[in-house]
Amino acid sequence: MKDIRVVIWGLGAMGSGIARVLADRAGVRLSGGVDADPKKIGRSLGEIIDRPEETAIVSSTLEEALAESGADLCIVATSSFLREVRSHIVGCLDAGLDCITIAEEMAYPAASNQSAAAEINRVARAAGKTVLGTGINPGFVLDTLIIALTGACMEVRGIRARRVNDLSPFGPTVMKTQGVGTTPKEFERGLSGGTIVGHVGFPESMMMIARALGWKLDRIEQTRRPIIAEEERVGEHVRVPAGSVAGCNHSARGFVGDRVVLELEHPQQIQPAAAGVETGDFIEIEGIPDLSLAITPEIPGGIGTIAVTANMIPAVFAAGPGLLTMAELPVPRNVAGNLMAAAELLRDPGAEKNWREG
Amino acid sequence: MKDIRVVIWGLGAMGSGIARVLADRAGVRLSGGVDADPKKIGRSLGEIIDRPEETAIVSSTLEEALAESGADLCIVATSSFLREVRSHIVGCLDAGLDCITIAEEMAYPAASNQSAAAEINRVARAAGKTVLGTGINPGFVLDTLIIALTGACMEVRGIRARRVNDLSPFGPTVMKTQGVGTTPKEFERGLSGGTIVGHVGFPESMMMIARALGWKLDRIEQTRRPIIAEEERVGEHVRVPAGSVAGCNHSARGFVGDRVVLELEHPQQIQPAAAGVETGDFIEIEGIPDLSLAITPEIPGGIGTIAVTANMIPAVFAAGPGLLTMAELPVPRNVAGNLMAAAELLRDPGAEKNWREG
Repeated sequence: MKDIRVVIWGLGAMGSGIARVLADRAGVRLSGGVDADPKKIGRSLGEIIDRPEETAIVSSTLEEALAESGADLCIVATSSFLREVRSHIVGCLDAGLDCITIAEEMAYPAASNQSAAAEINRVARAAGKTVLGTGINPGFVLDTLIIALTGACMEVRGIRARRVNDLSPFGPTVMKTQGVGTTPKEFERGLSGGTIVGHVGFPESMMMIARALGWKLDRIEQTRRPIIAEEERVGEHVRVPAGSVAGCNHSARGFVGDRVVLELEHPQQIQPAAAGVETGDFIEIEGIPDLSLAITPEIPGGIGTIAVTANMIPAVFAAGPGLLTMAELPVPRNVAGNLMAAAELLRDPGAEKNWREG
Repeated sequence: MKDIRVVIWGLGAMGSGIARVLADRAGVRLSGGVDADPKKIGRSLGEIIDRPEETAIVSSTLEEALAESGADLCIVATSSFLREVRSHIVGCLDAGLDCITIAEEMAYPAASNQSAAAEINRVARAAGKTVLGTGINPGFVLDTLIIALTGACMEVRGIRARRVNDLSPFGPTVMKTQGVGTTPKEFERGLSGGTIVGHVGFPESMMMIARALGWKLDRIEQTRRPIIAEEERVGEHVRVPAGSVAGCNHSARGFVGDRVVLELEHPQQIQPAAAGVETGDFIEIEGIPDLSLAITPEIPGGIGTIAVTANMIPAVFAAGPGLLTMAELPVPRNVAGNLMAAAELLRDPGAEKNWREG
């Protein structure tokens, strides 16, 4: 059996983490890396991810990476935003590769740009290749997991879900985009100026859920509020005095007519325990039956994104062509065994070899 | 757009419940019912499920039901056991129908009978039709949901899960198969005699999980222990004196070598609250990261089985031919909209109409 050959585009914390997981798995091979950082270009992938046996050299372009070695699939981990990954994705498809990206907006790209989604789908169809946007959130907690849970309901009248996490492990960029350490006035200015963004992915998760359930959302409203520290909180990268901002409480509501049918909340702050806040992923379904799910503590964001992305490789490799979402693919799973074997099972689960004679 | 035409085979509590859900949905039509009960044969389906608008007549055989009206898919809800539904499933396939069954052993039929699984798969392939065994458990709680959760893990070293439920709503048959109201001695005799069976589905859930994750289980051990009431518990159908059996604690362990990698537990009893036991569905994953999930109270068994089964219709209608399991199909979801539209989306998510121009 051959290996699935994977190129990693973007060797930051996420891309490197995914590469590291794949280096340790069977049925998959790291065939190249692409990065814009001159300090990484020309070095071996193994040096960057601390897996000496990975000898592929990091290139500055996909073309160079592919010239060195062929590939089947590319992981694009360069940015959160559709406008920044769009050309990368099209580049993968033109080169005949399946593409998985962790760009949050790609979880359901029509939420931010319908015509870009249509174009990516067209290019994917023409190339006979698959595109998926995924990650822990959007991609898993506040969409795929919710959708899966509704599968046990005869009727769903409304959904409320919350992802309550701790930003403490994250670096300076996240502190800035969540407004951690700002004064309430600076927070407001950051919101209007677009430097404080909160969570990227609410419209994406909501539209993914709505399409899966056959709902028609009439509108989506988003709210970003500062989480004010009552007492000082000191993180690795930032000090938040009492009265300053410990994070951003970002929420979104999806309406059918005037009724809120879908309410997602993602308060992100450093040291929530300081305010007695328990972290976790919480889903409440109002329906038949009512269901209440809690994952405590929350699924960690970085590890979760790396895991979901690596774990979806067999399903994407096996899937038909076009732009897909997590809702149309088989349930995610940790593939501990051979990734190519997992892909073959998913491509044709009714193949005779999968149900051998006793 | 046409409707998916569904025949319900077996109009007990589950089959009737599924029929009722479908009667209230769009894009699906109840085209017939089959039952062995002379009191139901010849009556309208609508009369039996309290939906007067459903005029299809209940037949004694599938042939009769199909002669009256064509169908696309049959729900088989006649028995828990492969040996009893096998000929029904083959009958559906021979008649050119997709088939979903709630027979617990069909969630992963190779667990109890490899050659029957191979045969059903062969017949399904030859007919170009799909077979799925599903339900709340096996089918959802202790397999699909576990598999989905591992999707957020970089590594899984072990899985422990518990479904703690309350048998109080169930009827006399369930009381007997779980040994409720017996003395400890009668319980032991019932176990050896095969009249007390506990939960049907552990090997099925375990093998489904193992195949999805690429694990090779070397063996599965099951244990059934009586749950002794410390104080009297009185249910609708049974009285349990102190010192007698309130239910059956059935558990199973899956081994790789000598290591338990998978431990599933399903204590079923009447009035667990009397012993201070909280009901719920609990999943613990030991890995990277560790994950802990709780659904409290548990997803109710009857409603859940009806829901999951009805909700899987679009995915099964859309799927390729053969014997499938929940692990190879798209994540379950409550299809509130049109079921045929949901099936078309799942059949080809990259179709141009799904990503319209903005």
